[in-house]
Amino acid sequence: MFEELFSKRTQAMKASEIRELLKLVTSDDIISFAGGLPNPKTFPASELADVCTTVLQEHQAKALQYGTTEGVLSLREEICKRMKRTIDLDVGPDNIVITSGSQQGLDLLGKMFIDPGDAIVVEAPSYLGAVGAFKSYEPNFVAIELDDDGMKIDLLEEQLANLKKRFVIPKFVYVVPTFQNPAGVTMTDSRRDKLVELSHEYDFIIIEDSPYENLRYAGKDIKPLIVKAPDRTLNLGTFSKTFAPGFRIAWTMGPADLVRKVVISKQSADLCTAPFSQFIIAEYMSRGLLDPHIEEIKKLYSTKRDIMLKALDENMPEEVSWTKPEGGLFLWVRAPSYVDTKDMFLRAIEKKVAYVTGTAFYGDGRGTNEMRLNFSFETDERIHTGVERLAEVLRDEIKRQSP
Amino acid sequence: MFEELFSKRTQAMKASEIRELLKLVTSDDIISFAGGLPNPKTFPASELADVCTTVLQEHQAKALQYGTTEGVLSLREEICKRMKRTIDLDVGPDNIVITSGSQQGLDLLGKMFIDPGDAIVVEAPSYLGAVGAFKSYEPNFVAIELDDDGMKIDLLEEQLANLKKRFVIPKFVYVVPTFQNPAGVTMTDSRRDKLVELSHEYDFIIIEDSPYENLRYAGKDIKPLIVKAPDRTLNLGTFSKTFAPGFRIAWTMGPADLVRKVVISKQSADLCTAPFSQFIIAEYMSRGLLDPHIEEIKKLYSTKRDIMLKALDENMPEEVSWTKPEGGLFLWVRAPSYVDTKDMFLRAIEKKVAYVTGTAFYGDGRGTNEMRLNFSFETDERIHTGVERLAEVLRDEIKRQSP
Repeated sequence: MFEELFSKRTQAMKASEIRELLKLVTSDDIISFAGGLPNPKTFPASELADVCTTVLQEHQAKALQYGTTEGVLSLREEICKRMKRTIDLDVGPDNIVITSGSQQGLDLLGKMFIDPGDAIVVEAPSYLGAVGAFKSYEPNFVAIELDDDGMKIDLLEEQLANLKKRFVIPKFVYVVPTFQNPAGVTMTDSRRDKLVELSHEYDFIIIEDSPYENLRYAGKDIKPLIVKAPDRTLNLGTFSKTFAPGFRIAWTMGPADLVRKVVISKQSADLCTAPFSQFIIAEYMSRGLLDPHIEEIKKLYSTKRDIMLKALDENMPEEVSWTKPEGGLFLWVRAPSYVDTKDMFLRAIEKKVAYVTGTAFYGDGRGTNEMRLNFSFETDERIHTGVERLAEVLRDEIKRQSP
Repeated sequence: MFEELFSKRTQAMKASEIRELLKLVTSDDIISFAGGLPNPKTFPASELADVCTTVLQEHQAKALQYGTTEGVLSLREEICKRMKRTIDLDVGPDNIVITSGSQQGLDLLGKMFIDPGDAIVVEAPSYLGAVGAFKSYEPNFVAIELDDDGMKIDLLEEQLANLKKRFVIPKFVYVVPTFQNPAGVTMTDSRRDKLVELSHEYDFIIIEDSPYENLRYAGKDIKPLIVKAPDRTLNLGTFSKTFAPGFRIAWTMGPADLVRKVVISKQSADLCTAPFSQFIIAEYMSRGLLDPHIEEIKKLYSTKRDIMLKALDENMPEEVSWTKPEGGLFLWVRAPSYVDTKDMFLRAIEKKVAYVTGTAFYGDGRGTNEMRLNFSFETDERIHTGVERLAEVLRDEIKRQSP
């Protein structure tokens, strides 16, 4: 009904493949590596009631009223202080706009830069939510493969040169450089430098999505792109993984004139993000609770990552490989090319284990033999058992399909 | 910087005229009828800390986690029950999607229906936030004048017939039929019937924005359009005026297949609206607190409306007229045609009183002699004094400009 009244972008819209698959994960005895949810154990439960009470006592008139589109000033100031402390970045409140989750930041950036037919660069595989947000604005996606060191910047350079011959310059390059979703890999320092160099040469914007920046369990910190190219990087950060997703509080950070444009675009998208939620997080941060809380989260996830890596080592058939993430929530499994993980999904569900199929993260048919595993949500025991089950499914599959 | 990278819609974007004007309202001694803010006295302060504590105790895992894009089920069910009770409308949770303020609903509907160049119908004057949201999707606006009985449906019929000759059918007609923002007028029952008739004849969608539905201080309820045409009306409701804006919780309600499309569009816009805020309002409603709370709000605003109407009666020069709203937050003042309210604005600020200029609500140059007054925010005394000041400014202006 009314199909003919929909805009072209709506006619093309589909419900997310992940969400449709997850509908099959109906019972608790299915061990799910499919979601991307933070573990509820990481939620700041004990202090929260008290924080809410303080906000209602001290900031009631502002916390319950409409707020500015830019976001609550005290929260933006807390974020600035933390940026100085954690990555030695000098930013002020004008460099930050609070958004309703990073997802809104991605949507606003899509709206801000993309006219139908514009070229934009993403990773292959890439974060689904970003691809979905950008897709509404009808760009041409240029998807650059990644390996264990992140996006293959030499391939990017090649593509940029090719595009330029056709007078095409991408509007922006979108990357999740640190503990990527879905692949779990981190872009090396030298590739970051090269990406920045290219951004100057070809004059494109860098969109750096860094939801997992604070969740490193091994290895050494690498400078974020916004530190390397503060004049042309828009960096997205979020409290969903370090505090709780249920407040939908994130931020987009970058040059003040670009952030100002995001603010104007946000005005018509939702006027402002809930001041009540913003005051809660500002109060939590001003009490000095966030940093120690993040340390707790890292301990929990680090253990889960180790358990998953060990279980993979011990159980997976030798034809199967996977990434070794130094942080974040995900790792990426590659089966032999003749294995179709989408086809295999129903058999995995029968064996009571779930994952997300690789194709979901490409959108061009690639990834048929790949899959994403999440290690943040399940209990330690179930991670171990789940990997055993998945290994069994894969062994059967390899036996059956092997040429 | 980077101007050439922006999408066309962004290059055309401007900060809202209201917001720019409001920057001049810098000191507390300026009595402002310019805002549209609910009065902080209407916020449900006393019960809220306890409601938060209950939510954290009983729903913590769900309230702090990502939620479904559709919204928290218990909140949607509470809204359904209330619809049955207040307007005798039978709807289920599938007819409702929770949004981050009605503003997000408007943005998603714009995205869902508008391709560049599509015709859409709005009122003249119209709600600014809606015009801003729709504008991002580059429609052709058809603006139909209103009078004290709401949109002039005979003019709409004429325009529809004219457009049809050029093979143009508008995608939707957007109205705020009850206590309109900015004009404060309510569309009569017979005009509503005629609008519904036209929607069937020309096959367009009705978008009924009803933020003030529950705030009637005089006169008799008139059936909402969604009751008259449930098969083709998308109705937007909000808790911003009956609970508090600071949670950004609203809903879009309509046929399940249309609501489903809004949900898919919302997935890429922000994944979900904050579950924590949704649980708070669901808990508040389930305690039976909302309806009595709304009665309190109506008492407060009803008094303020009476004070403003009385002050206008007693003070305004006879050349000036205004609407007599039976509810909502606003009324609309018409000065003689030779008065330019934008030009007069700085003189009003000097006299310590502020309003919003009429032109802001048209976007085609009309409204130069008109202005919007808000009566919900200022204290009773200041409303009285503010109208005296405004009357003086207008008297001076009429003396000066009268031909």
